[in-house]
Amino acid sequence: MSVVEPVIEEAHPERVRLVFEQADGTVKETRVPAGTTLFDGASWNGVAIDSTCGGHGTCKKCKVRVASGDQAVSAVDPRAFTPEQLRAGWRLACRAHAAEDLVVEVPALQTRPKAALAGVGRHVILRPAVQKRYVELTEPTLEDQTSDLERLLQAMDDIEPRVPLEVVRTLGRTLRDADWKVTAVLVDDLLIDVEPGDTSSRRHALAFDLGTTTVVATLLDLETGQPLSVRSMLNMQQPFGADVISRISATMLDHEALEALRTRAQETLAQLAREVCQESTIDMREIYEVVVTGNVTMIQLALGIDPEPLSMAPFTIAARRLPETAASEFGLSVHERAPAVLFPALGAYVGPDIVAGILATGLTLDRRTRLFIDVGTNSEIVLGSSAEALATAAPAGPAFEAAQIRCGMRAAEGAIEGVRIVDGAVELTVIGDVEPVGLCVSGLVDAGNVAGEGAKIAALSVTERAAANAVLDE
Amino acid sequence: MSVVEPVIEEAHPERVRLVFEQADGTVKETRVPAGTTLFDGASWNGVAIDSTCGGHGTCKKCKVRVASGDQAVSAVDPRAFTPEQLRAGWRLACRAHAAEDLVVEVPALQTRPKAALAGVGRHVILRPAVQKRYVELTEPTLEDQTSDLERLLQAMDDIEPRVPLEVVRTLGRTLRDADWKVTAVLVDDLLIDVEPGDTSSRRHALAFDLGTTTVVATLLDLETGQPLSVRSMLNMQQPFGADVISRISATMLDHEALEALRTRAQETLAQLAREVCQESTIDMREIYEVVVTGNVTMIQLALGIDPEPLSMAPFTIAARRLPETAASEFGLSVHERAPAVLFPALGAYVGPDIVAGILATGLTLDRRTRLFIDVGTNSEIVLGSSAEALATAAPAGPAFEAAQIRCGMRAAEGAIEGVRIVDGAVELTVIGDVEPVGLCVSGLVDAGNVAGEGAKIAALSVTERAAANAVLDE
Repeated sequence: MSVVEPVIEEAHPERVRLVFEQADGTVKETRVPAGTTLFDGASWNGVAIDSTCGGHGTCKKCKVRVASGDQAVSAVDPRAFTPEQLRAGWRLACRAHAAEDLVVEVPALQTRPKAALAGVGRHVILRPAVQKRYVELTEPTLEDQTSDLERLLQAMDDIEPRVPLEVVRTLGRTLRDADWKVTAVLVDDLLIDVEPGDTSSRRHALAFDLGTTTVVATLLDLETGQPLSVRSMLNMQQPFGADVISRISATMLDHEALEALRTRAQETLAQLAREVCQESTIDMREIYEVVVTGNVTMIQLALGIDPEPLSMAPFTIAARRLPETAASEFGLSVHERAPAVLFPALGAYVGPDIVAGILATGLTLDRRTRLFIDVGTNSEIVLGSSAEALATAAPAGPAFEAAQIRCGMRAAEGAIEGVRIVDGAVELTVIGDVEPVGLCVSGLVDAGNVAGEGAKIAALSVTERAAANAVLDE
Repeated sequence: MSVVEPVIEEAHPERVRLVFEQADGTVKETRVPAGTTLFDGASWNGVAIDSTCGGHGTCKKCKVRVASGDQAVSAVDPRAFTPEQLRAGWRLACRAHAAEDLVVEVPALQTRPKAALAGVGRHVILRPAVQKRYVELTEPTLEDQTSDLERLLQAMDDIEPRVPLEVVRTLGRTLRDADWKVTAVLVDDLLIDVEPGDTSSRRHALAFDLGTTTVVATLLDLETGQPLSVRSMLNMQQPFGADVISRISATMLDHEALEALRTRAQETLAQLAREVCQESTIDMREIYEVVVTGNVTMIQLALGIDPEPLSMAPFTIAARRLPETAASEFGLSVHERAPAVLFPALGAYVGPDIVAGILATGLTLDRRTRLFIDVGTNSEIVLGSSAEALATAAPAGPAFEAAQIRCGMRAAEGAIEGVRIVDGAVELTVIGDVEPVGLCVSGLVDAGNVAGEGAKIAALSVTERAAANAVLDE
């Protein structure tokens, strides 16, 4: 998945108003930073525009007509449209950077939209960073001694990919064995492989939420945008403590604990990866990109970065943005050169998982003020809109699940996970459909609601130990 | 060492004439492509200009005065000069891109020039890609929770280095153990390490000529520009055959031979690296950059790239420019993240070693037509000037040293390596000062000269089996 440059980090750029008129008569209006492409502006708002090339200006399918407002003709437009069409306002949406308010007509889709429901029901148009290019090369001759690598790159001269040495190492053999018919696998601008034959219909990505207690893996088919399998399991780091502070303490007491914790995180992720691939009968080597999110402690532990400074004042993180890394750094046996995408952290306790949540819900894209709540072993809330957002965090797992709630427990068998009033009677949903043993967090929040104690947010007030404050958007 | 973008690959750009007037009264005149910095133009011609930052515009030492011609004021110049000085023509040479003919006054050096004799006695001003920055950081506080990585990068905000994950992994510990006083080690824009304390006076590079028969290592002190140690040994691949074709054949007959040849190349390089470090008592981990040149077959074998297509028509190479790679790919235990610099290849038999030779001799920078001869197991000649250059190659080792010369032999004990006429008598130089056994290449060339058979080049005509032709510079 592409990393959307977090809007929350920008100063307030000039904004323009885009009105998308769709073929079915629906109209969507949005405000985006000046310079945003019409394709992105539409995608962010669930307006589907045809595209197969991922916005590189090569498939020429993302045709829209600018009905009102002035939109410059891009370098690629004259190759896609006649002069009459250009005068009528036709543009390729992925090349059209909006500089002023526009009304844009979006034709009916000719292909099935690649869309997924992400976050709180937000419709997201997929635009995968993983691209495949099937090419048929001409064989070298004494008159054309172009090197193997340059021959391949010339066949896709609209991009200038970075090429790892490992790809060059096997390129000559692959080209000759495959009779010069190969599929280049690109993740953003990185050429991660050259596969024999035409494999362009198969590409997958794997997303992890690496929680302190629970780890969830989602395998996504990037061709259809559909999740193929979702699995979760307990983080194997549990024996080192239930919360982030006890895990960090473990590394401070025993200098071998960091490596042990790293290994357990890797084993957890690796087992989930195997499970989702088995369930969906996908070859793990056809997972070309991995996304890992989680709180800062979990990410640093999984990458073997000393977490000690996170646990004591002044609570400093290793890096706001960690460098580009490889899925293999997380112990994953997916494609050997698959990159791992990480989200930035805003502070020691408002981490990449919260940034991912903000991006998924579009909280900072919307003018309405909304509240984002992540109830987990550590809990965070973000209050904000496109104007500004504020975030804070507090340890919640022990508070809710055992330490300070008499009947609290982890979300295991016997835990009440739902409470409703049906026809005046209390109705419980209990994990495992057994006699209730206690309340887990979702049951507690439900119970709070049912008891008329106000909005869900109130449940968060049980602890005032705000461990970190982060001001977003300035 | 910086990779100079090979001039030979460019079309003929507009050229400008630079006249350097030095403090000692000497004047050097040169023509360079428009856009070349005055610093580079001077360096290429052996004119030393003060500099400690490697041309990044930060040390502000490379002050020159443009006495004639118009030179734009760069963004950095106003920080280095008063308005009066700017009006008088003072500029920082590393930021001044020459757009027209100029006369430039170069002040006397305030520091000892870092210069080395390279190639055929050409004077080269060192401008190492390896840079060290000693920084003293302020500790984080609750008011300043800047992450460790951003804190370091802010202290050197004139550059935006790429940062490997491995550096982030140990950064927090290093910063705290070293009381926030550290030295950043950069190779071009790659931050390869952060060392505790001030290590800025120690930086080394290692250059290899990986020949089919002989491998030579030169350890260079990048602070002084002096070679600290030069060692050579036979390529341990010898048992697989004396020339490149027999080595390639070995990989075609036995699919495990490629890995064996790679290992032997690595062992050869590793042993030489140990020897030069022992001789000069340099810590191998303070070698931050490695340069490896050699013919295409040797480079591909050392990197584990299948050489088979090199050996048969149409003689295709894997890549004209191999991707950025790491010294560890050559089996070297120098700094674990030291990059390995490679030169481009022009064809299967006019390889990176010839490109290195062209760059070292400045053959394509000079208007005079000159002949470059590399007599080795495979031999190459390049004829050319700044206008155009032509190259070709032929197998020469077996021809000279055993196969077709009755008394030919390798340059071992008993080989005649020099022949002179002294006072009318023939005087021989014999390796090992023993009775002569045969002639090695240098002895053969000398003998040819002595026999009045013309220029050294004639020795190359013994074989007409030109294996490859490459036209340089169009």
